[in-house]
This record gives sequence, structure tokens and C-alpha cells, in this order.
Amino acid sequence: MSLLIAGATIIDGVSEDPLLGQDIWIEGSQIKAIGQRQKFAIAPETEVIEARGKFVIPGLLDANVHLLLDMRLENLVRYENRYEDLIVEAAQVALRSGVTTVFDTWGPRRHLVAVRDRIAAGEVVGSRIFCAGNIVGLDGPCSADFLARSAEIASSVLVERINSIWAENVGPELTWMSPEQVAERVRSYIGTGIDFVKYAGSEHRVPTGPSAFLAFSPRCQKTIVQEAHRAGLTAQAHAQSVEAVWAAIEAGCEIIQHCNITGSVPIPEATIELLVETKTASTVFPLTKRRYERFKENGDIVTSRLFTQASVETNVQNLVQSGARLLMATDAGILAAETSGDPALGAVYSGEDNLFELGQGHFHWLKAMEENGMAPMEMLKAATRNVAVAYKKDRQLGTIEPGKIADMLILEKDPLQSAENYRSIHTILKEGVIVDRSALPLEPILTAAAPRSAGTLGSGPSRKLGGGFPRCCC
Amino acid sequence: MSLLIAGATIIDGVSEDPLLGQDIWIEGSQIKAIGQRQKFAIAPETEVIEARGKFVIPGLLDANVHLLLDMRLENLVRYENRYEDLIVEAAQVALRSGVTTVFDTWGPRRHLVAVRDRIAAGEVVGSRIFCAGNIVGLDGPCSADFLARSAEIASSVLVERINSIWAENVGPELTWMSPEQVAERVRSYIGTGIDFVKYAGSEHRVPTGPSAFLAFSPRCQKTIVQEAHRAGLTAQAHAQSVEAVWAAIEAGCEIIQHCNITGSVPIPEATIELLVETKTASTVFPLTKRRYERFKENGDIVTSRLFTQASVETNVQNLVQSGARLLMATDAGILAAETSGDPALGAVYSGEDNLFELGQGHFHWLKAMEENGMAPMEMLKAATRNVAVAYKKDRQLGTIEPGKIADMLILEKDPLQSAENYRSIHTILKEGVIVDRSALPLEPILTAAAPRSAGTLGSGPSRKLGGGFPRCCC
Amino acid sequence: MSLLIAGATIIDGVSEDPLLGQDIWIEGSQIKAIGQRQKFAIAPETEVIEARGKFVIPGLLDANVHLLLDMRLENLVRYENRYEDLIVEAAQVALRSGVTTVFDTWGPRRHLVAVRDRIAAGEVVGSRIFCAGNIVGLDGPCSADFLARSAEIASSVLVERINSIWAENVGPELTWMSPEQVAERVRSYIGTGIDFVKYAGSEHRVPTGPSAFLAFSPRCQKTIVQEAHRAGLTAQAHAQSVEAVWAAIEAGCEIIQHCNITGSVPIPEATIELLVETKTASTVFPLTKRRYERFKENGDIVTSRLFTQASVETNVQNLVQSGARLLMATDAGILAAETSGDPALGAVYSGEDNLFELGQGHFHWLKAMEENGMAPMEMLKAATRNVAVAYKKDRQLGTIEPGKIADMLILEKDPLQSAENYRSIHTILKEGVIVDRSALPLEPILTAAAPRSAGTLGSGPSRKLGGGFPRCCC
Amino acid sequence: MSLLIAGATIIDGVSEDPLLGQDIWIEGSQIKAIGQRQKFAIAPETEVIEARGKFVIPGLLDANVHLLLDMRLENLVRYENRYEDLIVEAAQVALRSGVTTVFDTWGPRRHLVAVRDRIAAGEVVGSRIFCAGNIVGLDGPCSADFLARSAEIASSVLVERINSIWAENVGPELTWMSPEQVAERVRSYIGTGIDFVKYAGSEHRVPTGPSAFLAFSPRCQKTIVQEAHRAGLTAQAHAQSVEAVWAAIEAGCEIIQHCNITGSVPIPEATIELLVETKTASTVFPLTKRRYERFKENGDIVTSRLFTQASVETNVQNLVQSGARLLMATDAGILAAETSGDPALGAVYSGEDNLFELGQGHFHWLKAMEENGMAPMEMLKAATRNVAVAYKKDRQLGTIEPGKIADMLILEKDPLQSAENYRSIHTILKEGVIVDRSALPLEPILTAAAPRSAGTLGSGPSRKLGGGFPRCCC
Repeated sequence: MSLLIAGATIIDGVSEDPLLGQDIWIEGSQIKAIGQRQKFAIAPETEVIEARGKFVIPGLLDANVHLLLDMRLENLVRYENRYEDLIVEAAQVALRSGVTTVFDTWGPRRHLVAVRDRIAAGEVVGSRIFCAGNIVGLDGPCSADFLARSAEIASSVLVERINSIWAENVGPELTWMSPEQVAERVRSYIGTGIDFVKYAGSEHRVPTGPSAFLAFSPRCQKTIVQEAHRAGLTAQAHAQSVEAVWAAIEAGCEIIQHCNITGSVPIPEATIELLVETKTASTVFPLTKRRYERFKENGDIVTSRLFTQASVETNVQNLVQSGARLLMATDAGILAAETSGDPALGAVYSGEDNLFELGQGHFHWLKAMEENGMAPMEMLKAATRNVAVAYKKDRQLGTIEPGKIADMLILEKDPLQSAENYRSIHTILKEGVIVDRSALPLEPILTAAAPRSAGTLGSGPSRKLGGGFPRCCC
Repeated sequence: MSLLIAGATIIDGVSEDPLLGQDIWIEGSQIKAIGQRQKFAIAPETEVIEARGKFVIPGLLDANVHLLLDMRLENLVRYENRYEDLIVEAAQVALRSGVTTVFDTWGPRRHLVAVRDRIAAGEVVGSRIFCAGNIVGLDGPCSADFLARSAEIASSVLVERINSIWAENVGPELTWMSPEQVAERVRSYIGTGIDFVKYAGSEHRVPTGPSAFLAFSPRCQKTIVQEAHRAGLTAQAHAQSVEAVWAAIEAGCEIIQHCNITGSVPIPEATIELLVETKTASTVFPLTKRRYERFKENGDIVTSRLFTQASVETNVQNLVQSGARLLMATDAGILAAETSGDPALGAVYSGEDNLFELGQGHFHWLKAMEENGMAPMEMLKAATRNVAVAYKKDRQLGTIEPGKIADMLILEKDPLQSAENYRSIHTILKEGVIVDRSALPLEPILTAAAPRSAGTLGSGPSRKLGGGFPRCCC
Repeated sequence: MSLLIAGATIIDGVSEDPLLGQDIWIEGSQIKAIGQRQKFAIAPETEVIEARGKFVIPGLLDANVHLLLDMRLENLVRYENRYEDLIVEAAQVALRSGVTTVFDTWGPRRHLVAVRDRIAAGEVVGSRIFCAGNIVGLDGPCSADFLARSAEIASSVLVERINSIWAENVGPELTWMSPEQVAERVRSYIGTGIDFVKYAGSEHRVPTGPSAFLAFSPRCQKTIVQEAHRAGLTAQAHAQSVEAVWAAIEAGCEIIQHCNITGSVPIPEATIELLVETKTASTVFPLTKRRYERFKENGDIVTSRLFTQASVETNVQNLVQSGARLLMATDAGILAAETSGDPALGAVYSGEDNLFELGQGHFHWLKAMEENGMAPMEMLKAATRNVAVAYKKDRQLGTIEPGKIADMLILEKDPLQSAENYRSIHTILKEGVIVDRSALPLEPILTAAAPRSAGTLGSGPSRKLGGGFPRCCC
Repeated sequence: MSLLIAGATIIDGVSEDPLLGQDIWIEGSQIKAIGQRQKFAIAPETEVIEARGKFVIPGLLDANVHLLLDMRLENLVRYENRYEDLIVEAAQVALRSGVTTVFDTWGPRRHLVAVRDRIAAGEVVGSRIFCAGNIVGLDGPCSADFLARSAEIASSVLVERINSIWAENVGPELTWMSPEQVAERVRSYIGTGIDFVKYAGSEHRVPTGPSAFLAFSPRCQKTIVQEAHRAGLTAQAHAQSVEAVWAAIEAGCEIIQHCNITGSVPIPEATIELLVETKTASTVFPLTKRRYERFKENGDIVTSRLFTQASVETNVQNLVQSGARLLMATDAGILAAETSGDPALGAVYSGEDNLFELGQGHFHWLKAMEENGMAPMEMLKAATRNVAVAYKKDRQLGTIEPGKIADMLILEKDPLQSAENYRSIHTILKEGVIVDRSALPLEPILTAAAPRSAGTLGSGPSRKLGGGFPRCCC
């Protein structure tokens, strides 16, 4: 199958400036050539997309998503036999919004790998998946590392069964171990087919508390990274303090997640220099101005501790100015209607410009970084080429070049003019095939409407006469 | 279809003494005659069950079950669309153990009524169901009246949706209302097809606490009972203190549930006399000796407050001696394997002689009452005729008499010799049809084996190296 | 000692209209005569207070205070040996604000009685105290009836010791008992020297929940009231639902506390008629408009369930219009600076027009009732004569009449013009003696400034760098 | 003042074998000479203690105590103005049991320093104190690092005030900081007069959980130790995992606390070798056999996670065999009667052979180590000389040598025969003065009897009729 995108302005992720009025020739899943169509030996039946006045950019890559994000007990139970279906749905939501590749950095390995392989084999449509499985050193969702209270009310067997799906043999017990023991576990886990290794640099419990702990000693971190590299994989760390960032660089990580979230202490200059020098890539979680204002007013403990400290913005600006390799990353996933609509959920997962909303979060990221003064071309690279390079997938992904996989977006408006224009998607191509956006997700589950409540009896006053049960235990 | 049970000793629930060597002629679903087969005009093709040396008793009636008992959040969610299936399973577990009729005293009305009707119509096999739906004045399972902590972690929408299935328009808000308002609500609820009315005499929150509250004023109670009677239904109260018992008698209830559970204060003589005088029926929840010992040693707060106080036994003995109308009742239901095997569950729902285990609990009841000195024939009546009478179902159920529905058990051994002998079931007849016990439940759900945990990776030490997450928040 | 108040307008609590320009002759602690001074045979050395243009009213009576209100664990422990001192402080705060008599309706009996007697004996200055001790049927402060969480963290011995100080032999165990048993306990408790009996009509646990329970059956309530009457005491009920109000009237109570707080169900007309007919007195807890608005916006569960329901205002207006005997009552006490300034305390005990602030609450009550349309003279009576009558103390208290105890306030401005004018206190007389307001409380404890935090070291950034520990467990 | 101890067997902490039948000449607070009294130029009025047949050993040193241990909210509040008195009491309890010097490794600096100085100045009697103040990086007692639930119920002001007393400027916020920032804080803290520096190697939250986190990166740890050394102080780490132990050695600590408590992973051989090589001292918390059995049966989460894992004993044995420098340490302090008698307290702080009971714990330590096969002379050194050496106090303390401070115990029985014999104290000398053991503590506070509960009224049944309030929230 041949395809020709004709006459567009091409922002290929490589050149300093856009290429004006060029044609892209796609053969099968690959880009065959870029230039003037007249010079292409194209078959007569080749489909042509007239794109004059439009803009072609590489398919977007999100460096940090969670295709199974809604870890509320009720969801983990209700869909206990459908985790793959949930992952497929998320991969389709990502794809229809222009994210042709996602890097899942915490999830149920077995199910992620299965969906990854089905998408890769063309059995099901969706964003291309690379996955880490568990974060080495952390437990599953019903634990102190995530939602501790689930473990208080669910049956022991269920808690253990669910947590094991995530933690497998690289759970919290590794934090007690010697480097040799940790290495052995990680080696065995790598053998299960993950695409890259992520470990807990910072702990993940009560992230809003007064303390910032390291989950692994630096020499253990080094060991984990070495195991990843020995297997040809990249490594990355979950880091939430300045010392965790430093230790991750020292350990040799290719990527450090959410570098800007470091409590109230900004990353020291020396550490940023080291980051640049070692070409370690950083993801950042920026806020748009209006989201920042919302968080400020809200007073929620999570937002005030994690997102609205002065250092969060300072870090972003220092990183941008330092020339560090920045990656677009959102932590995004899908929440069930009952979860996302729950008043008790707090500010982090709701409201406008929510980074964590899959399919929208990447647009918010671009907008927020624009507000933070990032140069348009740098933003484009952060959302495409940089991600591919950091994950060592740049031989095939991240730019529009002959020989690369034909993942690309045709936009109506110029993304270099305004981050808003990334939304003006005209066509999404993945592996040379036009994505039928309106059909996705094929089977809505979490994105479907919530089941309705049973009708009430009679026409009398509501049963909430004396008031509902208070949600909060205080 | 005709059936003849030949030569058995018949304990019919009416006569003072067993009828020796008689024959029972069943036509269709009814008992046609009892006597000597020679005198019966039986069709030649009539099936004959030779029962010489065996004992025939009426099918058992349990005055208090919960066909949907396992209200753990994970079960309510996992089976949210299968509550009817769970009820069917429970009705079949009850039936295969000789309980041909159950009175469900708290559950999801809509689903109970549906299964009740399907069983009554012969569409599905199972114990005959009569149901109350909600306990008037109480909330659903995810509430302070039952499992408050579920409401703390589940989404608001889910909590509201599930609780509404139980509470409908007769939830906790009724406790705030005037008698007129309560009456209106109850009237409307009766119109939904319930078989009898149960209301909260005592509250149902923290039943082990230092206080015993009344959920309704006596005049409200009276109003509720009047509404029931006006509609031709019986009424009963959940009562857990001596004043709640007294108020329920005064209100005109036909039945008072778990009369013996009254904290540490035994029911005063005057109240027992009133009970006898008004012919109000009582259910009791007795313990076998070994269960009592287990509870004593265990020290569990629930068991020590509810079951091992001296008054619990005193009440049973005073009630037995007073000649009060006692009913067999178990509060039984089915717990999922994950629930019943959970070490955190506490003593009440596990261990030997557990009254609350559907299919076994009634045998434990009989054994416990035997240990409490109840006369064998009284026990038989408590498990059959008395229940039918108290629920005003004795025109058709509860005894072996011509014209009655042919529900009966053929036992290998004499139940008047030992309570243990109720277990020696040879044949169960429901509506004249032999129950295929080995086939029940037709589709095991909660009674099926629990799903297995995912296999662990490699052969290294368990991931529980540093210890599992503590279940308890203290 | 003689005293003459000369030339004031007297609002005596009896006459329909103020008495203009009259003189009051006080001898010792009593009012000797009212009229024209020329007609009085006054000793030459009699002190004269020139009060022309001023207004004299009876000393105020608060029908519901808690002289030891701050039941936070830290206060109960810190002052465990000083409860009497706290009570003295509160009695002095009340007195200096014009409340010459208080009725303490829940507190540590032994200590209240001791302070009451010391004040009565003239050993210490303070508002005159009448006290109920415990609310019959309730537990002490570290319990589910009040602050359950204290019991979770304090030592068992401490919890038991503190609760026993309040509960003595009339604690929550009475709710399990028969009327005879309850009567015996109450009789013995009355023998300890309390001034009136208060019992739990409604329960006092989770008052904001979806349910409204009765702590005692009506016949138990009747028994309690009979015991009080037999001993010559008045009786009253804590009531928070329409059925609790009804039951308290039926039981024969002289007073029903906070009649207007009945969830979302207003008191039915028939019950209000019964209240009027039986001359049962009601206290109400009204909100000023601005406090109502504050509660509305705040969204606090306690305020929204208890205070801002439509029925709360409806009840007040129906009671006012019905001619029911209304009493000024505040539930007021003193909170330690650390408690009242705690952001976690919620809206109920803080902010403007706070009824529960001793020394100010009664002014707020008057203002709120003015806003509710109560007639000025009715308000004055509600704050004076009605309280004395309801508590059967009107032979000596509540009005300005010869022979009565000389408790009175001289106001600069006319209280019948505006409730605000009750604040314009010129002089307070208690038992014929001028109160030295500026000296009270003699020894500030809870009203003293809070102890300061230790200074921080150096000049570096605050130790709150990573954020303090979250107060809330959610 | 001169003193002569005559004729005893001296185990001086230096010699390989006991010195038989020697005399010790003490002048003032120092040891003047050891040998034959005939050779001593002693004044005639010199007091002589005839000690033939007895055994003289150096005064004991406990390398880890907490003179203010009972951090229950009720105690912190009740004695908020008496922390010094509590510390004095504890220092006297230690002294009367033969512990002449204690190293307080976590406590309220200001108060510890004050008592330390008063004891040093001879103003008050008590064990000699050296103190660390706060553990660098941890918060105060009402925090997630210790008793988190206190912070949930106490007022914010109180929580902040109490925590600040401990944390001062070296609280949990340091875990967020860069090495330079941490160093500055520690430098300033050292300036307040502490005797040695202790920091959090391992975190101190939920020590029984599935994870073991590091509170500081190794380079931060190094910085802290450097600051200590620069000021001439020793440094030590709280360590609870094998990597924390390793990091503490690397950082240059003189002492590592509770080296044997490392979850289920024993310290690797290489780490133990490093420990020996660097002469880093280790404290261990051993159990006697019967305490181990008790913990095993009890099933308490804390004991099972911390104390009964196989690695705990393995570590002790490996450390003993390796020749590592072991120190006697108990973590001991005094619990109020209400705390230590509280059934809810759990197994750790109660029962026989409780290491944490000041005044007894060191005897249990010696017994437990004897059971673990430690050589008698090694044990004696672990309890005397080793501690002095590790803390760099051996110029004056830890052995019986001329010129040293005259701290010593005269025992009736030979401590090298049995650890039990350390209990056979005949005389305690501190700084050459005989301790009046029977008088200590001079003013019992926590060790005094608990206040009694108020008497109950009448003779009726206990008010616990319906049961007390459940302590546990589950």
C-alpha cells in the first residue's frame, strides 16, 4: 500500500526549520521518501492526501502513561478479568488523540505485554506500547505504596492476589536486600519481556508527607541499571527529591521521571549540570497557569505539597534554560466515570488542564510548557524525537525521515505558532495507516457512561432526609 | 404425578407422638392422605418410596436467613449484575440441606422477589422464599448500619447506588420521621410485593458498643405493624435489648428476632410473660457448647458482647421454660471463599458449629437447643410448624397433613432421639417432587473455589521477604 | 448592707410594660422594695447607684451551659487535677457577662457540685450554678458518645478513669436495662446532690449521621422523670428528633433541650400543641443570619446536618408563634486557646455569633431570636423569668420583685429597643453585691494566652520545608 | 575524701584475667591506685569497704537509652512542664541499677542538656548523661515517625509545639535537602551543646512495613558525619536494613544502632567484614530465649517483623563471631504505669526480659547475649570499655585504671560465672561516691503508682454492663 501526503509543511523533528511544501511518500509502514512527488516512482493507484496549507509532524510519544490507572478497589475487582480490555481501551484513547506511542511506566506486566504484542501484531488497533511492568521496589495498588486503605477492607486473599499481579518478584521486599539479591530479582524480571526497567528511587508512600526517603541505596540503584543495560534495556527512576534525582543520574539512568517535583527544595545547580553533562533525559509535570491557580485556592494537601511549591516551577525553568533533554510525559490514564466524578477524589485528578487525563493530558503539557517559555521547536522535539532518543527507539521512531516508521500527524494549524494547534488534528497515521479516530475506543468500558442508580419508589421526599453517610472519617 | 411414602414413622408436627408405620399419599404438590396405603385409591403407576424404618418430618423452615449475606465491598462489586444468581445459589444450598422454606429478613428486595417468583413458578429449583426486603429504618450494606468502612473507600456513586438497592424508600431517614410519615413510606414499600415487614426495633450500628438504642419510638413501631396488618402481612422486629423486645411485643409484632441477644441484661420475667400471653413468636440464636468455649477463648469483641454474656443463655432457658413460641432461625447465608477464609474476619463467621453458615446452620441450631434442654418434639415444631404459624403460612406449610403442600424430609434416623439425626437425610421432597440434592447448587458462584493467585516468578525467596502489609491500622 | 438603685426604668420580668423612673431598695442579698425612694426607710449610709436614664433587668439565666466544655484529650489530661478551677473560671466568665445563674446540663458531677457549693457559700465569686452532672444514659467524653477517637489513642486506664468521672453509675449501660433497673440507678444518682435530672432522649453518637435513635424507651423515660419528681427535682431530655421531642413531653419533662434541632423533619403541629398544652419548656439554638450564611457556605457536615436544615428555622418560628415557653440556652463553655484556634476544629465552635462561646453566646442568642421575630418582652422573659419557672427556681430568681434575690443588670440602653443593648452593661448585681467585672476571671486558665512554642534555631528556612504532617487521615 | 575498696577480685575491663585480692584507692572522684593497700599513702580517716570475696567491675555504660521514652500523648501533655523531672527520674533509675553512664540517643535536647549539666555539676544525683538530642532527619513524637495518631487528635498548636521540642531545626525536612543544606543545619544543631550526633540512616516510619527506606542518601550521611567529626563529636546512625548498615559504615559512623534488626535479610558477610575492618561499633538488641518464645506465640506484627525473624539471631551470632566491636544498648526508658499496664500496648513494651525497661533492660541484655554464646569477658567489655571507646570517652570512663573516674560496681557474685550475677550489686560508686540506691528515684513520677479511679456509686452491677468502648477501630 502506498500513500502520498502532498504539499504540506513538514516539521520533521530533525531540521531546525520546517520544510515547506514537500511531499511524503509512504510505502507500507515506512517512510520511503520526502521531497517533490515528481521525483517519486509512485504507483498510479497510490492514495494521495492533499495537505497543502497543513502541517505534518511526527506521531507524538508520551514518555509516561499508565494504561491501567484507576486502581480504586471497586475497579480492580469489577474488571479483575478484563485488565487487558482496559489497557486496549486506553491505548485506543491515546492513539485517537495523536499519541502514536506510549511508554507505560507502572502497570500489570502480564496484561500490558499481552496487549503490546497484540497491537504490534496488528490484531488490535491502538497506540504502540512499551512497558516497564512494575516499578522495581514497589508493591501493588492495594498497598501502602498506593491505596493503603483498600488493603484494610478487602479480603487478604484478594489483596495478595491483586498486588501480586503488579509486584511479581520485584516488590517492596527488594528494599531490604543487598545489591546482589536485588540484581538477581531484577534479572529474572527482565526475562519476562518488559521493554525497559523502572525502579523506585524515591519511595512512593505518602508522597505528601514531611519526609523524602530513598527506596534503594545508590549502589543498589547502580546494580539495577546495570542489569537493565546488560539486557539491552534502558533504565529510569521514580524520583521526588533532589537527592533521588542525583542518585538516579549517578546510577546511570537514561531517564528520570518528574524531575521537577522535588518538594520545596529546587534541584541544585550542580545536579542540573551533571544531568546535562550525562545527557540524562528528564520528564517534567508542569501546570498551566489556571491549573496552578486552582490548586492554590483548593488547599488540597496533595496539590500543595507536590505541585504548587515554588521549586516546581523553578525546576522547570532551570531545566529548560540548562538545555537538559526534556521529554513530554503525563502520567495519564483513564478513570472510571464513578471515580472521576467523585467529589471525594480531590483536585489532582479532576478539573481543567488535568495532565493525568489520557487523550488530553499531552495537550495540557504542551500548553503548560509554552506558558513556561519553552521554545516551540524544543517542545515539538520533547514530544517526539527526544522521547525516542531517550528510550533508544530513535532508529525507527520520533522523526519524519526516510526509513522510519510512518507515524505522523497532519495538523490544520501550525504547532510552532501555538501549542493549542496540536489539537487541530486532521489525520493520524500510524505505521502508514490512517487511524479511524471516530471509531475509538472500539469498546468503551471506563469511558462509557456509568451504570444508573435504581429508581426511587413513590414520589415522597428523598431518602436522604436525615443526611447521607459522611464520606470522611474525621 | 402420584407418590407414596410407605411404612415410615411420621412425625407430622401436629400429633403429640410419632405415627408409626403409616403411608403418605402425595398427589401433585399436595398431601392427599395419610394412613394405610390399602385404603388409598392410588393409581397403579404411582411411585413408591419404601421408607420402613425411616422417619418422615415436615420440610424445615428457617425463620431468618440472608440469601445475599456477603456484603464485603469486593463481592457487592464483583457480582453487581448477578445478585439474582447469588440468591438462587443460596436458595439451592438451603434446599439441598432440608430447608424447604426460608424467610429472608434483609436483602435486596427487587432481586429477592424476582428469584422468589421464579422458584414459585417452577422456573428454577430452590428453597421456597418469603422475603422482607430491607429492614425498615436501616440503610444498605455500605453504611454505618453494616460495613461503614466500605463507604469510606468506595466512590460516592457506587455507595449510593448499592445502598439504594437495599434501602429504597424505607432507609435510615425514617428514624427522623413522625409516625404519619413513616406509615406512608411503609405503605408504599409494602406495595412492592414483599411478603412480610421487618423493621429496626433496635438500631444496627456498632452492635457491640456500650449502648442499646431504639431505632423507632414505640408509637412509630405500632404504626409500622398496623400498616403490615392492614395489608395482610405479618410484622417483625430486629431487637437487641430488653426494652426493644418489650416495645416489639407492644407494637403487635408476630415475631421478634434473636430474642436472646440482649446484652448483659436478661429479659425480665414480666416481659416474657407478656410474650407468652400475646403468643408472640421468638427466634433465638443459641451456641453449642464448643462454640461458646471457642468464643470465650477468642476474646473477639463481637462475640464477647453479643454471644457469651450470661444473659444469652439465661434468656434461652427462660424462653424454653416459659412455653414461648420459639422458632428455628439462623441468620445464615453464604460467604465467598475469600471472605470466609480471611483471617481478619474474626470468630463470628468462621469455625465449627457456625450458625450463620447456610446449609449447616440449622443443624447447629438444633444441636445447640438440644444442649439447652429443649424437648425433642418442641425442637421439631420450632423448626417446622411454629415457623409456619408465626408467619401465617400454616394453612399450607409446616406440618404433614392432608391438604398441605408436600414438603417433607425422609430421615434415616429418629430426630427425636438426637438432633444429630436431622442430618441423616435420605430424601427431600419439595412440593411433592424429589430434590436432586447432588446437583445443587446448579451453578456454584460463592461456593465455588476461589480464583488462584498468579504464579510467582523464578525460584527465589518469596516476595514477602520484608513482611506483608499489616491488615490492621492500629 | 443596703443599696439603692435610683431612677431607672425597670423591666422586672413580670409587668407587661417597663416601670419608669422607679427606685429599687436592696437589703443584703434581697430586694426589699420597688417604688419611690422617699417612701423607703433607708439607712443614711445606704449606697446609691444613680441610674436615671438607665434600664434595670433581672440577672440573666442560661438554661444550658457546660462549665467544662473543652473535652479534647489534651485538656482533660493537662487539667485532670484542676477541673474545679476550670469550672470556677467558667462561672466567672458567665457572671462578668451578665449571666448570674447557669444551669450546667452535662459535666463532672463531683466537681460541679463542689464549685456550686463554694459559690453558694460565698467562698468564691461566680455565676450561681445548678447542675445535672451526667446526662443519664451517656458515657464520658472519651467515648463514642462524644470524642471516640480519644479512646483509640489514650491508655485504657485513663479512658476508664476520665469517663467514670462523668458517667458514674448512670452511663450507657442504662440503655440496656429494664425500667426498674434504670430507676434504681437514677435514684442512687439523685442521692449525690444534683439539682435536676437530664437524660438522653435521643442518642448522642454521630449526631450528624443518617439515623436518629432513641436512647431510652418512652416507659424508661417516664421512670426517670418519676424518680426526679419523687425527689423534688425537675427533669429534662436531650432530644434531636421529632419522636424524641414527643417522647420527652409524654414522659413529663419540664424542659426539652434544643427543640429546634430535629434533622430535616419539622416538629408536627400536634406535638407542638401538646408541648403548649403541657406547658413544657423548650430551649432552642437559633442562628443569626450571618452565622447561618457562614454555615451554608462552609459545607461542614456537622453544621449542614444540624443547623442549616430548613426545619431548624421552621421549628423556631412555629414555637415562637405557638406561645410555647421558650428558654434562652446556649450550650456554651470555654475552649482553650489551642482548641478554639485549631483550624481542624470545624465551623461549629468558631467564628462570629458563636452560640457556644460562654460570655458571648447569650448575646448571640438574643440577637438571633430578634432576627427570628420574637417580641422584645418575650425575649427578656425567655432569658430570665421563663428559665426560673421551668427549673422551678422562680420563688427566688428570674424577676425583680420584693423578696427575690437581688440579681440584676443595669444597662445603659433599652434592651426592648434592640437585642444589641443587652451588651450595654453598666453594673451587674448578684445577691445584692456589685460584681467587679474587670477582675474576672480571677485566675485565667483556658482563657489565658496559650503557651508559646520553643524558639527555632538559627535563621535558616523553616523546618516545615517538606510540609507538616497532614492532620487528616484521608 | 578518700575511699579504699579492699581485697576484692577486680575485673578492670582491661586485663585478660581478673585481678585477685587487690585494693583500690580512690581519691575524690578518681581512681588513685590499684594494688596492695600497704603501698598506698592513705590518710588514716579513709573509709574502707571490705570487699573480700566480692567482685569489682567498672560502672556500666548503656549505649542507647531514652530518658524520656513514654511519648503517649497523655504523658507528653500531663508533664509538658516537667520533662526535666522525668529525665532526672530516669537517670536515677538507671543509676540505682548500676548504669553509671547513659547515652541518650533520642530526646528533647534542651531538657536533656539541662539535666546532663545539673548532674555533671553535682546539683542532682543520677547516671552521667551524654545526649544526641533529636535523631537528625526525624520529626517529634506526635508524627508519622513515631505516634502518628496523636497528631490526628491533638490540636495543631500542641502537635507543632511538642514536635518542635524534639525536631528543632533538624527535623524531617532535612530529608528533602541537598548535602550542603543538610550540613548547615547539622552544624547549627551541634552548636546547641549536644554530645554526639545521631541521624536517621533508615527511616523510622512503620518500621514493620514491607519496605525499608533510607532517610538520607549516602553522600548526605557522609556530610552529617563530617560535621560531627569537625566539631570533635562522634556520629552514629539509626539503621534497620542491610543497606542502611552498609551506608552508615561508609559514611564513617563510629556506632551503628541495633545492627541486628535488618528485617529478614541478614547482613552480608562483606558488610560485616567492612564493619570489623573499620572498627565501627555495633549495638544489638538481643532477645532471651523465653522472650523470643513469647514473641513467637504472640503474633504481634511489630515483634514478628522486627524481632523474631531468623536474621535477627543470625546477625547477632555473625557479629559475635566476627569480632566486631559490640556495645550493650537497650533503648530503655520508663513507661508510666498507665502505659505499661495497658492491654493495648502490645508485646514489645511489656512482659518478662523486656530490654526496653530502664533499670532492668541491661540485665536482660547480658542474659540474652550469654544465651547467644558471647564470652563472659567480651560481655563485660561490651557493657563497659567498648562503649566508652566507641563514644570516645575512654580517657575517663569504661575501665578501672588509675586516673579514671571512679565509677564502679561491687558485686556479691562473679559476673564472669553468670550474667545473672550482674544483679548481685553490693555497692555502686559514681565518681568515688557511694550511691544511696534505696533513695532513688528521689521523686517518683512515672514510677509512682497510678492515680486511682473515682469510686463507683452504690453497690449495683458495674457500669460496664453493656461493655466498654472497643479500643480498636477495625
